[in-house]
Amino acid sequence: MLQTTLIQLDNYGPWTVTPEPQPEMKLQRLQSRLYADLAEWVGTRDGYVFYLRGDNMVGVTNGIARSEHAEIQAAIANQYPVTASVAIGTGSTPAHALSEATKQLQTAGSAQNPDRQSVLRGDALASPDNSQVHVAHFDVNDVTSCYTDQLSAFETYVTIERGYAELMQYMYRTNDALSFFVGGDNVIAICPDLTPAQYRDALDYVRETAELDLKVGVGSGTTARAAGMAAKHALESCRDRDKAVTQLNADGVQPPPGD
Amino acid sequence: MLQTTLIQLDNYGPWTVTPEPQPEMKLQRLQSRLYADLAEWVGTRDGYVFYLRGDNMVGVTNGIARSEHAEIQAAIANQYPVTASVAIGTGSTPAHALSEATKQLQTAGSAQNPDRQSVLRGDALASPDNSQVHVAHFDVNDVTSCYTDQLSAFETYVTIERGYAELMQYMYRTNDALSFFVGGDNVIAICPDLTPAQYRDALDYVRETAELDLKVGVGSGTTARAAGMAAKHALESCRDRDKAVTQLNADGVQPPPGD
Amino acid sequence: MLQTTLIQLDNYGPWTVTPEPQPEMKLQRLQSRLYADLAEWVGTRDGYVFYLRGDNMVGVTNGIARSEHAEIQAAIANQYPVTASVAIGTGSTPAHALSEATKQLQTAGSAQNPDRQSVLRGDALASPDNSQVHVAHFDVNDVTSCYTDQLSAFETYVTIERGYAELMQYMYRTNDALSFFVGGDNVIAICPDLTPAQYRDALDYVRETAELDLKVGVGSGTTARAAGMAAKHALESCRDRDKAVTQLNADGVQPPPGD
Amino acid sequence: MLQTTLIQLDNYGPWTVTPEPQPEMKLQRLQSRLYADLAEWVGTRDGYVFYLRGDNMVGVTNGIARSEHAEIQAAIANQYPVTASVAIGTGSTPAHALSEATKQLQTAGSAQNPDRQSVLRGDALASPDNSQVHVAHFDVNDVTSCYTDQLSAFETYVTIERGYAELMQYMYRTNDALSFFVGGDNVIAICPDLTPAQYRDALDYVRETAELDLKVGVGSGTTARAAGMAAKHALESCRDRDKAVTQLNADGVQPPPGD
Repeated sequence: MLQTTLIQLDNYGPWTVTPEPQPEMKLQRLQSRLYADLAEWVGTRDGYVFYLRGDNMVGVTNGIARSEHAEIQAAIANQYPVTASVAIGTGSTPAHALSEATKQLQTAGSAQNPDRQSVLRGDALASPDNSQVHVAHFDVNDVTSCYTDQLSAFETYVTIERGYAELMQYMYRTNDALSFFVGGDNVIAICPDLTPAQYRDALDYVRETAELDLKVGVGSGTTARAAGMAAKHALESCRDRDKAVTQLNADGVQPPPGD
Repeated sequence: MLQTTLIQLDNYGPWTVTPEPQPEMKLQRLQSRLYADLAEWVGTRDGYVFYLRGDNMVGVTNGIARSEHAEIQAAIANQYPVTASVAIGTGSTPAHALSEATKQLQTAGSAQNPDRQSVLRGDALASPDNSQVHVAHFDVNDVTSCYTDQLSAFETYVTIERGYAELMQYMYRTNDALSFFVGGDNVIAICPDLTPAQYRDALDYVRETAELDLKVGVGSGTTARAAGMAAKHALESCRDRDKAVTQLNADGVQPPPGD
Repeated sequence: MLQTTLIQLDNYGPWTVTPEPQPEMKLQRLQSRLYADLAEWVGTRDGYVFYLRGDNMVGVTNGIARSEHAEIQAAIANQYPVTASVAIGTGSTPAHALSEATKQLQTAGSAQNPDRQSVLRGDALASPDNSQVHVAHFDVNDVTSCYTDQLSAFETYVTIERGYAELMQYMYRTNDALSFFVGGDNVIAICPDLTPAQYRDALDYVRETAELDLKVGVGSGTTARAAGMAAKHALESCRDRDKAVTQLNADGVQPPPGD
Repeated sequence: MLQTTLIQLDNYGPWTVTPEPQPEMKLQRLQSRLYADLAEWVGTRDGYVFYLRGDNMVGVTNGIARSEHAEIQAAIANQYPVTASVAIGTGSTPAHALSEATKQLQTAGSAQNPDRQSVLRGDALASPDNSQVHVAHFDVNDVTSCYTDQLSAFETYVTIERGYAELMQYMYRTNDALSFFVGGDNVIAICPDLTPAQYRDALDYVRETAELDLKVGVGSGTTARAAGMAAKHALESCRDRDKAVTQLNADGVQPPPGD
């Protein structure tokens, strides 16, 4: 079972233009600081949280209790001029879990309903829980020499962005996985338990549709952090051994070949 | 003439995995805080700066002197564990200006050359300069009721993301404009002087290729901030008067119809 | 047994003036952000940390393992342009514990020795440990009506500051307690197990030497946070019942009168 | 003429305990981040701002317009969960100027009046204005070798703190100067135009009353930043030439001996 968390700022759009539009750089600053703090609060508890749209952020929160969610929610209210509603959703795939979390907030009221404030919904997985989180960490082969040092910065961005839009959509539609661009040339995907062949299919798809060569390190563990660290080491191993796909579990042991 | 700035973290990729990969949430926190500070430093000087890939950030910096760029660069070095190389590029279109800035850094050395540190390149426009900055602020019609309150948070994201990938590419290829997702359902594009018909063509293109209905407020001024605030007011005016395209200059006066 | 932590920035003084003095507001910003992050990192683990001199910060860290100290130390190095050396000291009184921590760092090298970087010294208490932390939270009676709303802001500050300097010194010399000004009209003291009479003596001393009327809420618990929250509730209880000294343990129960 | 600014959080004390006391580390984090941002906002405009009591902060703001104060005030409201009232005061000495600023806020309402929110009072000096700001930067001789590397961290703190309490009070009562501890072993005083002899008297006073040996660099300029940078260079010059008092103006030229 995967546990995800949807963190949705309450009535944020109207807030940004009331009584009149706030300077964009102030809004960017607010959104970035708030996300930076969430990364801290969720990260300290061994979870992951992603920026998504800034006003809607997504956490992978296996191992984080409902009461800890309440603490994080209170911290937002006490450190920021805005509040957030928070829902925990669990499911057999990342997509199902987030869908579940989203429904809980939608039932609680519209994102622009001024009366819906600091709502907390949903239940965390019972603790301890041995469910595995699977994290896939993708990057672009030779991105610096082929792109960053060659093309205009925006051209590089558009190229990577297009490839990742294809990857994101493919992983979501085909595998019920949730993928997030995390800067540089990196995408982190929260996945079900997939085989190396399924990852190779994804790389093939991106090569064909967007002419972008990727590699991927895959890690597993009982928390997003453990799985994510394993994925990072797996990606380093791809680099060292010139492989396209490497899988490791949280102990650094490569799982038996699955395909 | 438009003035852009490329801010590129020095040798950042290797830094994140030396001596071993850092926890992802620590990296996200670092990147977000650094961007939040840049938004402050550039914003206070009436410019805009966008996150792009996090390790490569793009500023629209008309009116900001080279010496102020040096101050911002020093502030990064003195507040963060990483340094940045910075290049100013000017050109008759946003794309040309950023291409110019990128070339300057590429000539100074690879993004992963450990010897290239805190390089500063390029010249700012002479001051005062009356060149107009044109900012287009796009958003999605009825995004809360049609998407946020209906679909799974990731489904909404994928839908908006795909539409904006199309918009971004269209505006770049057709109009030499640089577009950036700024959170929620908002894209800000730095554009040449375009006609309302050209903006309508962009909206049509997105509707056809991605089935997403957008509107756009366009503003002009001698700085990104002035142009951007006019664009925000223009977007509010679209909302109030149910129009797809509205243009305002920095004084809030609608320019003569250009098509 | 009390566990304290000394966090000392490495070679910080020279860093601030090399190659030439940095703007003061940049230094203030750096020091404040670093402390704000430490407050987060230590606070999340139920400890307290105080600013002291900014380049030397003091934590009360019962319940925080040595490995967690290493994580916090790594976080400083990875988020800031400076590093810190860290020592854990334990002792039967707060003063002894901090003295122990200080000696460990002094033995490791001078605060301005460029070769002493990110040193970690000392051992945490075995876990679990039932040692009680005692926190006394002092404030000034009627500070707003008597001072803030009457005197010049600096006059108020000087008055409070003088009273607190006396309190700090008295508590240290007489009771081996460590007291810290935490803003407003608040001082938090980390104390041995003192009787209400001993607290009343301290209030009397400050009234006589500095003509300042204080009250104090005292709390106990196995962590700084638990003890500190009890102290805050005890202080609220002083306010409600117009008493000078109130003691509570972490469960909110008033301990049997000790004098 | 000197221009100071008092920034007072609105009804902050009650906010920290409503509906119940917030965890101390969250409050410390909030106060530090808010001050760090003020340091940025005031510093970018060439002013200085000091923490004072955290809920009452003091700026030295020669050259900063009232409209810029309004921007800073709006930034607090838009980035934090609290608001601040702000008053500008001018006067022939620092003490008079701050007294003037304080009176303006006191007239506007109590610091704990829930109806006094985001009040802005007072007028900035006409611009341009050639009034000189005088900044004195004190530090302790051989603090690392005599104190930091020898005594317990708290003992060092108490020693420095006591000396600085004497200095602060002496400079205020004798010279109408405002002194602030800024971390490490540094105090920055905003002063009228004093002679070297007057500074030597202050050093003598601290040596006699608190047995602490200080030196001081004094700088002058039309802004706090210019004066403060000159003071820092003057302090470096004290170090190099083993002198107790050095004065420089903003151009780095030593003024004619005044005593």
